[in-house]
Amino acid sequence: MTDTDKNTRHQLRMARKKAIIDASIARAYQEKGLLLVLTGNGKGKSSSAFGMVGRALGHGMKVGVCQFLKSRTDTGEEAFFGKQARCEWHVLGDGFTWETQNRAKDIATSERGWAVAQRMLTDASYDLVVLDELTYLLNYGYLDADQVLDAIGARPLMQHVVVTGRAASDTLRDLADTVSDIADVKHAYRDGIKAQPGIDL
Amino acid sequence: MTDTDKNTRHQLRMARKKAIIDASIARAYQEKGLLLVLTGNGKGKSSSAFGMVGRALGHGMKVGVCQFLKSRTDTGEEAFFGKQARCEWHVLGDGFTWETQNRAKDIATSERGWAVAQRMLTDASYDLVVLDELTYLLNYGYLDADQVLDAIGARPLMQHVVVTGRAASDTLRDLADTVSDIADVKHAYRDGIKAQPGIDL
Repeated sequence: MTDTDKNTRHQLRMARKKAIIDASIARAYQEKGLLLVLTGNGKGKSSSAFGMVGRALGHGMKVGVCQFLKSRTDTGEEAFFGKQARCEWHVLGDGFTWETQNRAKDIATSERGWAVAQRMLTDASYDLVVLDELTYLLNYGYLDADQVLDAIGARPLMQHVVVTGRAASDTLRDLADTVSDIADVKHAYRDGIKAQPGIDL
Repeated sequence: MTDTDKNTRHQLRMARKKAIIDASIARAYQEKGLLLVLTGNGKGKSSSAFGMVGRALGHGMKVGVCQFLKSRTDTGEEAFFGKQARCEWHVLGDGFTWETQNRAKDIATSERGWAVAQRMLTDASYDLVVLDELTYLLNYGYLDADQVLDAIGARPLMQHVVVTGRAASDTLRDLADTVSDIADVKHAYRDGIKAQPGIDL
């Protein structure tokens, strides 16, 4: 095939692709707050949520972040996003559950955290609410899943919510507009590489 | 089962989990710059990279971002991260390839973009380099894959690199320390919801 043929074929293929994409953009007219669920065992769930925090702040939106499991407050994400004017950042965890080994305490911590999230989910001034690692609290039964899903479903119309964490339930997936399942194809951790500032924390 | 039984069983399960996790943390002693690949068709690849940009900035690291496909400069990510002191942001695309429909032009644009990335990959002052949507340039043959992978492999020892985009090749996956494959379980786009500021751009 000559270079000219190659270029012509490329142009035809791209013209077909453009027609398909333009048609689907024309259908995509709705505007409403989305519920996004980022789940699976792979790296990238929380960092993806934080990337959307950055995007939202770039559009002048107001953002609320609830970190439900983490207790450390020396992470890069908090240091950076927590100081932004339109971003409210809450570290609500008390260590991972395998650190505390105390179910009653974990439940009390979860309920205190959920009260913060509930306040955001009933306040239309928050354009984006991130519920980081919420799935664990639901899956361990620390929070009432029905109550949580009802509160997310009843939030202000234009408010976006991002939920992260492994093993999102079917009911949460059903409620969501977008669900990404992040598979752990390969993780540096398994090769003996420790969690890295800027990447994992 | 009584509440006391439940709590005891929970504590035993969590103690076992802690032992496993502590052992794997003890093994994870290496420190080096990582190559992360975020691929797959689902939502969250670029936003995850941008979340890591935020984390890195929170640790005072210097970050370079190359957006290889996008040509628009009105995105939330650029508005927000582009103005940060330690973050260098380059929008290097010329519209998607199905917009340009011109292979020779796309190749020239790709090569100009790659020159920017190459400079960062040979400069140890960048702690994190994001090569956003690079896979498309490799998969369309706009850049020489061997040359690109060699440059990534030969980068400064402590520099982290994040590559995003669909359909990462096997050679890129092999070179990577961490690979996440983001499956598109559900996407709001297919329900007629247009791309949303703060979420998709």
